Parts: sequence; C-alpha cells; structure tokens
Amino acid sequence: MIIIGVDIGGGSIKGAAITSKGKILDGFTLPMDKEASQEVMFSRLADTIKNFIDTHKYEEEISGVGLGVPGILDKANGIVISSPNMPTWSNFNIVKYLSSKLNLPIKIVNDASAAALGEARFGSGKDYSNIIMLTLGTGVGGGIIINNELYDGYKGTGAQLGHALLELNGRECGCGRRGCLEAYASATALKKDTEKLIKENPDSILAKIANKLGKVNAKVAFDADRANCPLGHKLVTDYVMYLSEGILDYANIFRPDVFVLSGGVANEGEYLLSRIRKYLKDHDYGYKDAPIIKVEQARLGYDSGKVGAASLFFGRR
Amino acid sequence: MIIIGVDIGGGSIKGAAITSKGKILDGFTLPMDKEASQEVMFSRLADTIKNFIDTHKYEEEISGVGLGVPGILDKANGIVISSPNMPTWSNFNIVKYLSSKLNLPIKIVNDASAAALGEARFGSGKDYSNIIMLTLGTGVGGGIIINNELYDGYKGTGAQLGHALLELNGRECGCGRRGCLEAYASATALKKDTEKLIKENPDSILAKIANKLGKVNAKVAFDADRANCPLGHKLVTDYVMYLSEGILDYANIFRPDVFVLSGGVANEGEYLLSRIRKYLKDHDYGYKDAPIIKVEQARLGYDSGKVGAASLFFGRR
Repeated sequence: MIIIGVDIGGGSIKGAAITSKGKILDGFTLPMDKEASQEVMFSRLADTIKNFIDTHKYEEEISGVGLGVPGILDKANGIVISSPNMPTWSNFNIVKYLSSKLNLPIKIVNDASAAALGEARFGSGKDYSNIIMLTLGTGVGGGIIINNELYDGYKGTGAQLGHALLELNGRECGCGRRGCLEAYASATALKKDTEKLIKENPDSILAKIANKLGKVNAKVAFDADRANCPLGHKLVTDYVMYLSEGILDYANIFRPDVFVLSGGVANEGEYLLSRIRKYLKDHDYGYKDAPIIKVEQARLGYDSGKVGAASLFFGRR
Repeated sequence: MIIIGVDIGGGSIKGAAITSKGKILDGFTLPMDKEASQEVMFSRLADTIKNFIDTHKYEEEISGVGLGVPGILDKANGIVISSPNMPTWSNFNIVKYLSSKLNLPIKIVNDASAAALGEARFGSGKDYSNIIMLTLGTGVGGGIIINNELYDGYKGTGAQLGHALLELNGRECGCGRRGCLEAYASATALKKDTEKLIKENPDSILAKIANKLGKVNAKVAFDADRANCPLGHKLVTDYVMYLSEGILDYANIFRPDVFVLSGGVANEGEYLLSRIRKYLKDHDYGYKDAPIIKVEQARLGYDSGKVGAASLFFGRR
C-alpha cells in the first residue's frame, strides 16, 4: 500500500508517497500563500497531488491521502475549523473537497498528532506502546499515543500539551491564557528570552554570537552556553528547568513508556537531552518510587508529520 | 457474576459484594490499624473477606476480589510499593497473598482509578467514552478513562492528576514538589486557607461558623459564602479559580467528553459546579473554538471505589 502523506506547515505544504513500512519514495513541495483564499490554496494542493500521482509510476497504486493540519479540526467531519498560521481559513471541509477532486479516501489529523504517529510507528517510539511527544518549535505541540493508538480527544481537539499551566498568571501565551508551557518552552520563548538578555548585555558573548549569525534563534543560547557564556548558561539552565517541569507534569499524568522530543530546539540533541535527564532525575519527587522517565530525540526529523499522516491508513501496528 | 469490591481508605477498609450490573448486595467494614504491620493488616482483611463470603449466601458464586489501593502500585505484578497513609506498607504482594488465602482471582488498581472506573461504568460517566475524574479530598486524585478503558500508565503509576503544576515554585505539595494542583484544590488545601483567614479574622462570620461546628473543614468556606461572609466569598472564589484552572489544563490535554468531580468538596454540588462552569466559560481561551467543557458531580459517592474495583472483572462495557 502506498499513501500520500501531507504536512501542512506555515511556510509550505510538503507531501510524499509513503509505503506501509514508512519508506518515503518521493515528494513534492507547494509554497504556502498566506494571501490566497482557502479555496485557492486547496485547489492548488489538489492539482499538485494530482500532478504528483500522474507523473510518478509506482508499482502499487496510491490508496489514499493523509494530511497533518495545524489548527483546530473537526476530525470526524473532515473540517479545518481554524488555523493559527492561516488566518483566512475557516470551517473548510478539506476531506470532502479533496476526495471529490482526487477520487481518493482522505484523512486528516492535527499536525502535532501526525508527527507523534510517525515517531510512534517508525521512529523513536517504535518499541513503546504509550508515548508522549512534545514538539518544541514556534509553539509547543503535543501528541499522545496510548496503547499504540493516537488519542486526541473530542473531535480531535485535545492533546494541546503546550497549553497546560506552568505558572498561574504567568507569561502571556498566544492562546489567550497566561502561563502555559508554550510561553516558556517553545523555540519562540527561548528566542525572546535570548533577545532580552542580548539587549541588556550588548557586549556579551551571547550578543556576539547573535551578531555573527545576523539573527537570534533558539540555537544562539545553546551556542553561547557551549562557549562558556554565563548568559547562555542561564538561558539554557532556565529552559531546561521549564521544559523538564512540563515533562514532570506529563510524567505524573501519563507515566508513558517514553517521551519523544522534536522540533527546532530538540535538534540540540544530547546536549539538551542529557541536561533534561539530569533535571528529571534530581526532581522526580512528584511521584516517589516511580520509574525513571525516558526521554529521546525524535528520529524522523521533518518527515515525521508526513509519515504519521500517511500512517492514518496503515491500521494498528 | 458477583465480585467483591474493596476500597482501602485511610480510616477503614470497606468492601461489598457487587453484581456485574453494579448493584451493591451487601458490605463489610474493617477498621484500619495504622500500628499493625502489613502482614497483620492483610491477614485481617483476608479473614474478613473469608468470613463475609461464608456468612452470605448469594445465588451466584463469588468470582473474584478487586481492590482499590491508595499509593504506588506495581499493578502488573500485584504489588503495593508504598502507600502514603500506611507508612509501614512496603513492597507487599497483595495479589499473591490474598489469592493464596482466598483461592480466588485478585486484581488491584489505584484507588482514584477505581473510583473513576465506577463512575465511568455505573455513574455520571456512563454515557461517555472519554472521562477525566478528579477526586477532591485529602489530596487531589485522578482517573483517566479513554475509549471506555482505564488508562493509568506504566505499571499503573500514572493518572496522578493532582500532581501537575498550577504554579511553578508555588505552595509546598505533599509529594515533594512545589505548586502542584493538589496544594490548591484539595479539601486539605481549602481547609488550610480557611484556617489562615480565621486566625487573621477571629470575629468574622467565617470564624463563627467554624467555632459553632467545633472544627474547620472544607464546608466552612462554602457555608460562610452562603451566609454572605466576604472571607467565605474570597475562599470559594479562589478555590473555584484554582480548580477551574486545573480543569482547563486537563481540557486542553484530554478534551474529554466529561469531567466528573468526586470527594469531599464535590459534595457542595451545584453550588460549586455552577461556579466552575461559569469560570470555564469565561476563561476557555486556552483553545479557541473548542467545545464546551462538561463538568458533572460523581453519582456513586463513597461507593464508586468499591464498584470500580469490582468492575475490573466485568470486561469492557
């Protein structure tokens, strides 16, 4: 069985033909046009997929299209209710539209859940049944795999793991609440914290690293820490604390077999993971006598969403 | 099928013969003796159950014993690792012990999960598939029902819903962490908050209500609020905020079909529920366009644990 897995991102829509063993055969990219109406954008997507199918000859036929979509979905009815990066999208029945255009079965899932499914099935979670995935990017996304199956709540609107409190009345969060994990542990939050320290300390190693790079991203803090900059050290230490406290919460709530971290900040790999593991070991009072909390980096990188979206058709592993 | 459901509490162990339709036929109570060793206590429990079976003649035979046990369990291996109220209990294989004494199949589950199972199957959750139960008593207990099945994490050590942060570095929690929901939304926390205000305001209506009662419990704040005492109003308003913020977190995480509240504070019924529902409606920014959060009071009261423990034998509904 070959399925087209599609990952709708802020900058582009990426898709690929994927086998039921998770192998990526070939892909396509469609630039996201934020000015375009949803009708125009999805019409382009339909044409792109049609063209992709026509020009590629696979031994097996394409049996469906799975899409990972950011935002609020009514998964059961195939509707994109709204999407934070595409403000013009509103109550669009993507499943109905694409299935009539492509004459193929269509399934949708939240983008973070798609990534979790991909990692659960073919990545760092493949040896485990209960998995919590945290995506540390623009926001903090979440994916919940329980007994080898995706759990995403009423109509697929759950698993918003970035939107539980770290701090009552704390930092403003993009969701409208204050104090959500996302406002502390996203790449965006780390970037903001970094920018603030750079402004206050223009002669620091931290500032020099950012100036050399020509911008501030989440990596700057880690690079400064590696260069023994005390400000970089503070940023990384605080970040590890914030993220680890969130992980401790989810450990107490789910006691999953493993946590899988993905997204921009997770690219720091062992440098980040080793610090998180140490923090968790030192602070896992939350549940005395509890087993060690396993934390791993996602393995599929930016492919996890596509692969996971395709796996909606692969049945239970 | 008749099962003996047992609820091990801090003050006593309560058990009952329960049919597969959730009907309670008859019960027993064994006082908890905190001085006694675990061997002595469980030997008494075995004798009590044996005696209960011998003296009661049911049409059907007893097919098993299900126990809801507070503390840290290794559910898969039938072991009570530790129990907060019974400090002498340590690594006791309750399943092995009782099955050899009673010659019956034995199953164990965390006490809060047992209560959740009972409510899910025969109480306020019976029309729903995905249920989050919060027990507002000495601590804040949690139960997670997903797709009609209990989820309690690795070896049954999860679903510690009282032990996720409300406030980083906040109030000390009994678990060793700071800022857990339990430290704000348990009956114990409300009682402590009430005691503090009484001490500071010895002539208040709040203080008078407590003096008349001869003690402070969670109900004093609610009684004072009903008597238009500003201190009572503050306590209830703050309590509703704390609990509702916790519910908002779990709404974003799980988007369950319903929340079920049980335990001492939940006995305030609609007086509490209506205030929580209003808070949730006013503050559910956490996830825009999300469905209304349903909150109900538990229906089985103190029977939910026994019934839920027995239902471990009833298979999937």
